[in-house]
Amino acid sequence: MLLPALYNIAEICAKKGLRYVVISPGSRSAPLTLAFARHKAFEKIIVPDERSAAFVALGIAQSIKQTVILICTSGSATLNYAPAVAEAFFQEIPLLLLTADRPNEWIDQQDGQTIRQENVFGKHVKAAFHLPQDYQHPDSLWHINRIINEAINLTQHEQTQPVHINVPIREPFYPKENEEITFDSNVRIIEQIRTIKNPSQIDWQRLMEIEENCPKQLIVVGQMPKNQILLNALPQIERKGIFRIPIVADIIANAYPFGKTISHHDLILMPQSETLKKTLQPDLLITLGKSVLSKSLKQFLRKYPPRYHWHFQEYGYAPDTFQNLTHILPISSEKGLEYYLSYTRKKFQPTSYYEFWISLENKAEKFLQNFFGQEHSFNEFWAFWYILQKLPNKSKLHLANSMPVRYANYLSLAPHQDVEVYANRGTSGIDGSSSTALGAAYVTNEIVTLITGDMAFGYDSNAFWQNRIPENLRVIVLNNEGGGIFRLLPESSRLPEMEEYFETTLKVPIQHIAEGYGLHYQKATDARSLFSILETFFEPSAKAKILEIKTDKYINQSFFEHFKQNWLEKFDF
Amino acid sequence: MLLPALYNIAEICAKKGLRYVVISPGSRSAPLTLAFARHKAFEKIIVPDERSAAFVALGIAQSIKQTVILICTSGSATLNYAPAVAEAFFQEIPLLLLTADRPNEWIDQQDGQTIRQENVFGKHVKAAFHLPQDYQHPDSLWHINRIINEAINLTQHEQTQPVHINVPIREPFYPKENEEITFDSNVRIIEQIRTIKNPSQIDWQRLMEIEENCPKQLIVVGQMPKNQILLNALPQIERKGIFRIPIVADIIANAYPFGKTISHHDLILMPQSETLKKTLQPDLLITLGKSVLSKSLKQFLRKYPPRYHWHFQEYGYAPDTFQNLTHILPISSEKGLEYYLSYTRKKFQPTSYYEFWISLENKAEKFLQNFFGQEHSFNEFWAFWYILQKLPNKSKLHLANSMPVRYANYLSLAPHQDVEVYANRGTSGIDGSSSTALGAAYVTNEIVTLITGDMAFGYDSNAFWQNRIPENLRVIVLNNEGGGIFRLLPESSRLPEMEEYFETTLKVPIQHIAEGYGLHYQKATDARSLFSILETFFEPSAKAKILEIKTDKYINQSFFEHFKQNWLEKFDF
Repeated sequence: MLLPALYNIAEICAKKGLRYVVISPGSRSAPLTLAFARHKAFEKIIVPDERSAAFVALGIAQSIKQTVILICTSGSATLNYAPAVAEAFFQEIPLLLLTADRPNEWIDQQDGQTIRQENVFGKHVKAAFHLPQDYQHPDSLWHINRIINEAINLTQHEQTQPVHINVPIREPFYPKENEEITFDSNVRIIEQIRTIKNPSQIDWQRLMEIEENCPKQLIVVGQMPKNQILLNALPQIERKGIFRIPIVADIIANAYPFGKTISHHDLILMPQSETLKKTLQPDLLITLGKSVLSKSLKQFLRKYPPRYHWHFQEYGYAPDTFQNLTHILPISSEKGLEYYLSYTRKKFQPTSYYEFWISLENKAEKFLQNFFGQEHSFNEFWAFWYILQKLPNKSKLHLANSMPVRYANYLSLAPHQDVEVYANRGTSGIDGSSSTALGAAYVTNEIVTLITGDMAFGYDSNAFWQNRIPENLRVIVLNNEGGGIFRLLPESSRLPEMEEYFETTLKVPIQHIAEGYGLHYQKATDARSLFSILETFFEPSAKAKILEIKTDKYINQSFFEHFKQNWLEKFDF
Repeated sequence: MLLPALYNIAEICAKKGLRYVVISPGSRSAPLTLAFARHKAFEKIIVPDERSAAFVALGIAQSIKQTVILICTSGSATLNYAPAVAEAFFQEIPLLLLTADRPNEWIDQQDGQTIRQENVFGKHVKAAFHLPQDYQHPDSLWHINRIINEAINLTQHEQTQPVHINVPIREPFYPKENEEITFDSNVRIIEQIRTIKNPSQIDWQRLMEIEENCPKQLIVVGQMPKNQILLNALPQIERKGIFRIPIVADIIANAYPFGKTISHHDLILMPQSETLKKTLQPDLLITLGKSVLSKSLKQFLRKYPPRYHWHFQEYGYAPDTFQNLTHILPISSEKGLEYYLSYTRKKFQPTSYYEFWISLENKAEKFLQNFFGQEHSFNEFWAFWYILQKLPNKSKLHLANSMPVRYANYLSLAPHQDVEVYANRGTSGIDGSSSTALGAAYVTNEIVTLITGDMAFGYDSNAFWQNRIPENLRVIVLNNEGGGIFRLLPESSRLPEMEEYFETTLKVPIQHIAEGYGLHYQKATDARSLFSILETFFEPSAKAKILEIKTDKYINQSFFEHFKQNWLEKFDF
């Protein structure tokens, strides 16, 4: 056995309960690949393009909420991980990156596949380690064990984020013929104990003195995975009649069963009316979760700031998204709300402030039903609305940047659908949404639907270059032949360079890519074909499916303008 | 005019003689895009996938030996540049990276497309700058002008390498309707004057005392673009009868017209014979150029070190590739050799050492002609040999990693073909070879041939997602259904995990990709179809062409073993 210290990395990962490893082929990384390949604890997924591999791992980790391991060879392979690593860092997804490297002495000697890998992910990992390349000295073996334990703990403890371990490996890295790889079942594990964080009672009392003088209170929920504890707690509280604060939640907040949430704030906040905004302006704003999708909500809360803004965030650097943060509460969202509700001396009754938000939400809902229920020229926004109605209950929805996630936020889902929604809003890139959805589909039997655009689909076409594309994956590509967002934004749409330099006129060969990688391909070009395809599209099938929805960009543009215009006309405040 | 300081970046670039800009669409980068789009000095190329965009820029810069500009938006777009940036850094290709960013105050506030972009390329750029975001204060305007001048100078002066300018931009970034973008034609330019470096006469004399006692001298040329000065100088020197040092040159050294070079060292050094190696061991080794491809040459020179090893390298960190470097000469290759030949007191006559190398080279050449001239089962190595014979004179050849560049180094080209050879051997990644070749094809009217494998082709399939694929591009894909190198390396080929985890059994839909992006597709599955296709393949055409050569991996493996075996049997030292 040549490299037991490296092989035992797999054993430590197994003992720590890690289950998924995404491997990209390579020579220098062979000892790592072999260790995990021969260890029975792991599901192994082979993805040759490291950019895609890292997003697949992210999709898995995002779903199972557990650290996923990545293995790649030395050189530029590691750099291809970088986009997903940054996304995982900001979205707080736990990844353990094992990158093989040449031994230290060969860096900068013009050897093949050799770059400067130490700290290659810069400020986008929680921690970066460089493994010793000596496996003889007992201190070195201790150090390796220490690093692996520490790195896994760091991915999972407090902020869940990517951690990088760079692994210099000397030749020979292939075991001898018939050489067995064995694992030390007594390998040392260091367990990280968790603590519960809570402000002192004195602090809570101080906070309650503030909130007592804030009649208009608003909760805003940013991106958040479905949080069962929170979902269980809040309706109960509401049933006790003490919870009557409007909750504004983006589609990626997965907050739909919080009683009645405000999910159409993109419509509600669209009018320029000063009176409306002043009426909606809160005294106390409480924020939970991560990034907020809605630009109109951000602009509203920056221009009409609350007197107080509390942000519940257990760990890490607190963002000041609305430029009016006054209190950072290092506590989990569910605990934070629980304490808040137990400490408050108010008995919340439906206030006029609450009722006003709800009335606007109802108005927006009714408008959408009416407007989309009418006959329209076939266009992508309308198709999007229709698809959302048809999503299977309890399925997962992945939304690509940039238009799909925006369209979805205008429309929202019906609470009874119980669809968990994901989007890569850590960096909001268009780069890895297909791979992410594919990773998610690996680890569930439910249908996973990705709604993407032709640009995002084209960018990540290598997502489908895999041994097995999970058959529960459904990809819907809104093909408007280019970056439709530039046509829909008023500032860019009127530029003479819009088509050539922004929207681009690049065609993505969706059917070729789909069929090349063995997906079942269908195409809708009008409402009738869309109706007909969606009748069976979400049913279980032997193969993953892809639906291209081809629309006209000029109709899309005028429909979207018509939609906004219509709403503003109906909106009589 | 909102952002004259930013618009003038285009003017400075133009005045500095830069001509090519590769733009990826984005919103934050709009002022940069518009400045270059509206400036008449530039050829603009739109590439949506930033990973591919950066390799396209690298391919252009590698060909024209001039700085190429890249523009992308904020967020993970920048990270997708990283693989090409590292390649450019090590291969010393000049790129100017203009990455748009949010203004500083919005970093870490969970705004969209916002990462930590300052110094994002870490140790793989020559320098990284962060532009001021204030355009009011005169010192700020001076600073912007200073940085742009400095950055362009740095890309081109001494070591030519990528330089990063991060550009924070505040909204609004779209000009008003009908707003003109004008450029200040008096913008200040700072010209960087070059110097000529040369060791002192005393040092040269000291060096000559060394070489006088070194009867066995050897020159090794690493990767180098075709160097006309060197090519002109050396045959002259040879005609004067003073140049009789064996010159070992990899295929990527572009050194074929250096009189008679040794280009079959992968064959010559294959035998295990101690006597052979000792006879070939030099007393003085002189190295020029960048990385050496041949693993057998590296191993030979490490195991049989010269007494002295001089490395000619004008600038930067000198690699100690063979672990026996004794003198670093900071001088250009052509000047270095010129001085060396003028200072030496020897009249070089063909020594027995020289004659021995030449006799081995002749033997290898004859063996190859004989061996490949025979009838064989159709296989990729043989097809490779046949293709090399057919390459048009004065065309360009791009070789992907990993097998294509290795096969080519076994075979070499005939000097009369005058084909310039490129490969991304800075990091030796498989990631960007198609994009690089495509970039090269943009800037020449000659045929540009890329020989690649199915894995490298699949990895970089987004290379073809462009408005215009230059019609002079020829792509030849050796399709052996997987990473053939793992089957050809003895250490990996016998692993039980070889197929699943290393070679992989992933199929790349070459025809689908080719036809999807509008390339003319052909396929060869035997010698006859290959002969027939190659009859017209390199002729001018209206569309870029792609040739898939489908071979059987088992036949490839046994042919390669047979080839090596046959040579060793013929080789009677």
